[in-house]
Amino acid sequence: MMIPYQEALRIIKDEIKNISLATEFIPLSDAVNKILAEDVFADVDLPPFDNSAVDGFGIQFSDRKSWTIVGEVTAGNFINLIVDESSAVLITTGSKLPEVVDTLIPVEDIIVEEDKIFLRENIVLKKESNIRKKGSDLKIDLIALPKFTRLTASTIAAAASCGKENVSVFKPLSIAVLSTGDELIPINETPAEDKFRVSNLIALSAATTSLHQTAKSYGFLPDDKNLIRDTIAQMLTDKNDIIITTGGVSVGKYDFIKDVLLELGVKIKFWKVNIKPGKPIVFGVYNKDGKTSLVFGLPGNPVSALVNFEIFIKPALLNLLQQPEFDLTIAELQNEVKKNDGKRHFMRGVIFIENGVQKVRSHFSQISGNLVQLANANALIIVKEEEFFLPKGSLVECIRI
Amino acid sequence: MMIPYQEALRIIKDEIKNISLATEFIPLSDAVNKILAEDVFADVDLPPFDNSAVDGFGIQFSDRKSWTIVGEVTAGNFINLIVDESSAVLITTGSKLPEVVDTLIPVEDIIVEEDKIFLRENIVLKKESNIRKKGSDLKIDLIALPKFTRLTASTIAAAASCGKENVSVFKPLSIAVLSTGDELIPINETPAEDKFRVSNLIALSAATTSLHQTAKSYGFLPDDKNLIRDTIAQMLTDKNDIIITTGGVSVGKYDFIKDVLLELGVKIKFWKVNIKPGKPIVFGVYNKDGKTSLVFGLPGNPVSALVNFEIFIKPALLNLLQQPEFDLTIAELQNEVKKNDGKRHFMRGVIFIENGVQKVRSHFSQISGNLVQLANANALIIVKEEEFFLPKGSLVECIRI
Repeated sequence: MMIPYQEALRIIKDEIKNISLATEFIPLSDAVNKILAEDVFADVDLPPFDNSAVDGFGIQFSDRKSWTIVGEVTAGNFINLIVDESSAVLITTGSKLPEVVDTLIPVEDIIVEEDKIFLRENIVLKKESNIRKKGSDLKIDLIALPKFTRLTASTIAAAASCGKENVSVFKPLSIAVLSTGDELIPINETPAEDKFRVSNLIALSAATTSLHQTAKSYGFLPDDKNLIRDTIAQMLTDKNDIIITTGGVSVGKYDFIKDVLLELGVKIKFWKVNIKPGKPIVFGVYNKDGKTSLVFGLPGNPVSALVNFEIFIKPALLNLLQQPEFDLTIAELQNEVKKNDGKRHFMRGVIFIENGVQKVRSHFSQISGNLVQLANANALIIVKEEEFFLPKGSLVECIRI
Repeated sequence: MMIPYQEALRIIKDEIKNISLATEFIPLSDAVNKILAEDVFADVDLPPFDNSAVDGFGIQFSDRKSWTIVGEVTAGNFINLIVDESSAVLITTGSKLPEVVDTLIPVEDIIVEEDKIFLRENIVLKKESNIRKKGSDLKIDLIALPKFTRLTASTIAAAASCGKENVSVFKPLSIAVLSTGDELIPINETPAEDKFRVSNLIALSAATTSLHQTAKSYGFLPDDKNLIRDTIAQMLTDKNDIIITTGGVSVGKYDFIKDVLLELGVKIKFWKVNIKPGKPIVFGVYNKDGKTSLVFGLPGNPVSALVNFEIFIKPALLNLLQQPEFDLTIAELQNEVKKNDGKRHFMRGVIFIENGVQKVRSHFSQISGNLVQLANANALIIVKEEEFFLPKGSLVECIRI
């Protein structure tokens, strides 16, 4: 039974919710690319005091055009200078304002002559301008970063300003990979006769690492049912969160991953999806002692395996972590696209910007074995089930890869 | 002297070329996100032999509509079966073709009845279809991945299929960070009076890590010229490739990073760029014993510091590594944008897709201190020097952050 892509993804997202996300409390400095497992609150007003948004002169607002400099306040060296209407104080960016200062004039709007400053012509003063008010970014006790925020340079900066020297984040999931097939040989051997180097193990591990999860390789095996069953049993015993096999999911008597999974007590949810590339994909769920593992049997073809990772495993995982499932964008198709089946196609393409327009070119051949073409692609163009012809110039949705 | 953004970036890119890129030879499995320092060649034809692109039946092309199944070939189990015009052999995806087979019929185009197969109605056979020819992806000795390719899941898969168990990649650059300012306190203290928590150190280190380079923190210092000079001298002695300081670059007597750099023999290239946020940025170059270090004095304001990293340091580094300098996209502006100066603005915004159109909304306030707003942004909208008003609906260039 073949199911549509959207339904397959929905089933996976429903099941992945049963994987329990563990948390850990780690130094903020080690948390780049992790996902927050707690809300981060402002423990002080942000900013903590009224301060200057510019290097400038602090005054009491009036219609004057010149003032006498009476002092200076720099960041970290607050002096509560008394400033009357005729006087001004030099205040550097981020410095706390003397109480009576209500307006900042940026230095570039001023001409300085000895201890006097003069407003430049055509500059119109506005009261309260260039002041960052205490609490104007965020009031104390409000949420600065909600749970499930990804920790990047800027969110880490915000967490630091909230005093979070350590943070609670989600532990990486353990994603285990096994490749199967009589045709496989190690990378460092030269293929003779009808052999292929095993590229899936290292590629799917790299895809896992790129998602900031933990990859675990179980190596590769020939099409030997007992060996494969024993190894998958071990992968389940090791309580991996996600188990990926490649090979053994299409027709023919050597394609028996589905049977092995059934024997091991994995509940099969689907085994064919109406897509190209990557149609034969087995998805199952294993529950034991309250622990859920998801099992994906991907095709042996390395392009199909990687595309399936991108369109099934990655979005489901990101959904679990409440992140955007896809890095989607819209681009103008630079060539016409045809297909003659009702499958959803994910066509390898290249996105680029030309004359201020974002465009995408689909590669000439979409034969699924071509790793070199996949290596040159930066996007998967989505061609929906009901779309058979997309003229040049169409706006298409693309997954950035 | 204030210089335009494009000129400042050009100067940095010219200087960064003098940083010598070291290489290392590492296992391909450890090379995710590294940049290739060698061309990777196909050491065999890719694919290495004619094989089936589908699960299907191999035949000799003719106008027949039915055949007798005479055997099967699976991946890694080649048999050179003799197939005459009336017979067919089951061949699974990726399996080597018997010599006489010239056409593959996908299983879904076939009805099987015992040992006979029949072509489904309306299916038109094409000679040589569904065959992946030896060398059709790439001929032996051609370049599969050129030097400076980033190693991702798909390029790693391609390198693996070329037999690269180990690869030569560029070593990460060493990027050192020092924060300065009397206003700074550690993250785990609560700001009193006029102090700010030091967020720049950890944020710029995170930005460095996100670029897959090595971050080195030299901590933070008060505005003490001797201390700062000694520490920057140490950062130069330690042969860091890029040295970043924050604070001490705007007006006022405490802003003396530029003076310190000059004393240490750093050649200052510029110290003011016509941009917002982040106008005061000192850029200098230090050469000693054939080693070049770039020195960036960024503003103390954390939003300005991070934006400067994004628009100066990151693109220059990516340019050195021959990667796209920016992750640019085009989006439709959801609100009008005004500015009243001739600076290039980098406005924090949020990109989203709505009804098949990529849109961007600029945040309401662009006050440069607001870390919480920066944390919520996923793009910097570029507003060029000569643009003062952009109406709602304009197509604008955005840097994805």
